[in-house]
Amino acid sequence: MKTIEYYQSKFINHLKRFNSTSNSPRSLYSPIKYILDLGGKRLRPTLTLMTADCFGGNISNGLDAALAIEVFHNFSLIHDDIMDKAPLRRGQQTVHEKWDLNTGILSGDAMLILAYKLFESYNENQFKQLTTLFSQTALQVCEGQQYDIDFENRFDVTISEYIQMIEFKTAVLVGAAMQMGAIVAGASIQDQKRIYDFGRNLGIAFQLQDDYLDAFGDPELFGKQVGGDILEHKKTYLFLKAMSLGSKDCQHKLMDLFSNSNLTPTHKINQTLDLFKSSGADQATKEAIVNYTNLAFENLTELPISDHMKQMLHNFGLQLMNRDS
Amino acid sequence: MKTIEYYQSKFINHLKRFNSTSNSPRSLYSPIKYILDLGGKRLRPTLTLMTADCFGGNISNGLDAALAIEVFHNFSLIHDDIMDKAPLRRGQQTVHEKWDLNTGILSGDAMLILAYKLFESYNENQFKQLTTLFSQTALQVCEGQQYDIDFENRFDVTISEYIQMIEFKTAVLVGAAMQMGAIVAGASIQDQKRIYDFGRNLGIAFQLQDDYLDAFGDPELFGKQVGGDILEHKKTYLFLKAMSLGSKDCQHKLMDLFSNSNLTPTHKINQTLDLFKSSGADQATKEAIVNYTNLAFENLTELPISDHMKQMLHNFGLQLMNRDS
Repeated sequence: MKTIEYYQSKFINHLKRFNSTSNSPRSLYSPIKYILDLGGKRLRPTLTLMTADCFGGNISNGLDAALAIEVFHNFSLIHDDIMDKAPLRRGQQTVHEKWDLNTGILSGDAMLILAYKLFESYNENQFKQLTTLFSQTALQVCEGQQYDIDFENRFDVTISEYIQMIEFKTAVLVGAAMQMGAIVAGASIQDQKRIYDFGRNLGIAFQLQDDYLDAFGDPELFGKQVGGDILEHKKTYLFLKAMSLGSKDCQHKLMDLFSNSNLTPTHKINQTLDLFKSSGADQATKEAIVNYTNLAFENLTELPISDHMKQMLHNFGLQLMNRDS
Repeated sequence: MKTIEYYQSKFINHLKRFNSTSNSPRSLYSPIKYILDLGGKRLRPTLTLMTADCFGGNISNGLDAALAIEVFHNFSLIHDDIMDKAPLRRGQQTVHEKWDLNTGILSGDAMLILAYKLFESYNENQFKQLTTLFSQTALQVCEGQQYDIDFENRFDVTISEYIQMIEFKTAVLVGAAMQMGAIVAGASIQDQKRIYDFGRNLGIAFQLQDDYLDAFGDPELFGKQVGGDILEHKKTYLFLKAMSLGSKDCQHKLMDLFSNSNLTPTHKINQTLDLFKSSGADQATKEAIVNYTNLAFENLTELPISDHMKQMLHNFGLQLMNRDS
């Protein structure tokens, strides 16, 4: 069985070729090369190549679609980092910090266009399929980002609104990355839909896992500060579940904790974690992660691909869900 | 002969339909509707419809391509206004002023994607032609914007670098707007290229005219403050020509004027205008405008369209070049 690293290294070689072309003006393209060079797990493009292979397609044919997904993802990181005023990305300066705001905006814009340009290597039929899927997904990512911003000022966000937000902001891009592999391999519309739903459900599970680890992860293994979401008063799945499952007393305490800026960080985090546990929100979140993971796996059963390939996708899902960071 | 207003009103009806669809989240789509509602001459989309008609195409078929051009143009206005810290656009608050920076970035991003989505109504063949032309053009607009920013800090910008900058920043979108009309009407590649070059050369002439009017326009008729470019120390065609045609003495005086922030605006403007005239830069700019306009008209002669239609395009060009604002 091919390993994830096999697809990953194919992709990284392609990215290196892309990044080594020289373009002008350099002031526009340097930040683009910089962010694409920062690394990361390259999960999404790896999934595109893996899916193309699963459906009997040529892995090389998937490279440009995979790169489009990665370029888009990094475009969204540049613009999100501006919106979040984030100084660091993967331990390095963010683009707007290393250069300035205008460079961040303009280089990001250019990346979104460059992502579209990468589909031009496909024939008219695949070009339209890939581009249409890409536009739909990219627009949902923007809408998801806007919902996330809107939710900051609302205390009445429902669980289903929250799920739609993370679906748009994170999960649809995972689904689209996989569907693109299926398109490139010439899979049927039905199978494209199945693999999209596999990726989308896995993406939701992945984001819920992120919420969970942010609160209950091992500080040694979790990349970010544990409790970061709590300090930012983020209405994560854990928070929303605690608000819906907890007693009136629990709800009031949570509201107080999330409105009070005078508490010490440790006190606020510990008090909130206690409420997440006593309300049963921690267990409910774990169950939701399992449910979405199983929903994803169900999409695999009907697929006309070898058991061997199904196993690879299944293992990939398990690996993603058993991570500590 | 159909008037410009005929095509314009067809377009405005289509824009109204587009703007009346309801989308969520409203916080993302309201700024999009707002900027698209601010008005303007709708020059570019009008050109798309006019060109489709010239090549015997159905005007209705051109509507979505025309709208894509207008949506893209307004996306670039939102992001440019952020970069320029502009408070007003067409006499109204800019998007980042009326809402905030993040809304400006994210609504702009969504508009760029919405522009791409508008091509989805075309068949696979036209979809790929339109999308590829659009990506090339959009990327050049970003590059042109970056050159413009880079030139602010350089005193060694050449005339040909300047022409390339305005070509990318302004003229290619006029060319693309017209080529899209030709694509939709099924014109040959050669004719597509000719009408593109007509629009591109007219776009360069238009921008040079803008430079000229900013300095020598009638304050009563010119929409903006006359001399605005001089006060911002912009290295326009007039400035670069004065630097290359003028004496050493003229060059030094210009450099001083463009480095000195202590002069009164009226003094700075009048001194600079005198140098633009004494160096012959004003005449050279007028000649360049005529040259690019004639270059544009040459592209019309070979086109397999009726003399009637050629006359309409010719008149449009003349009208554009004889404007006072």
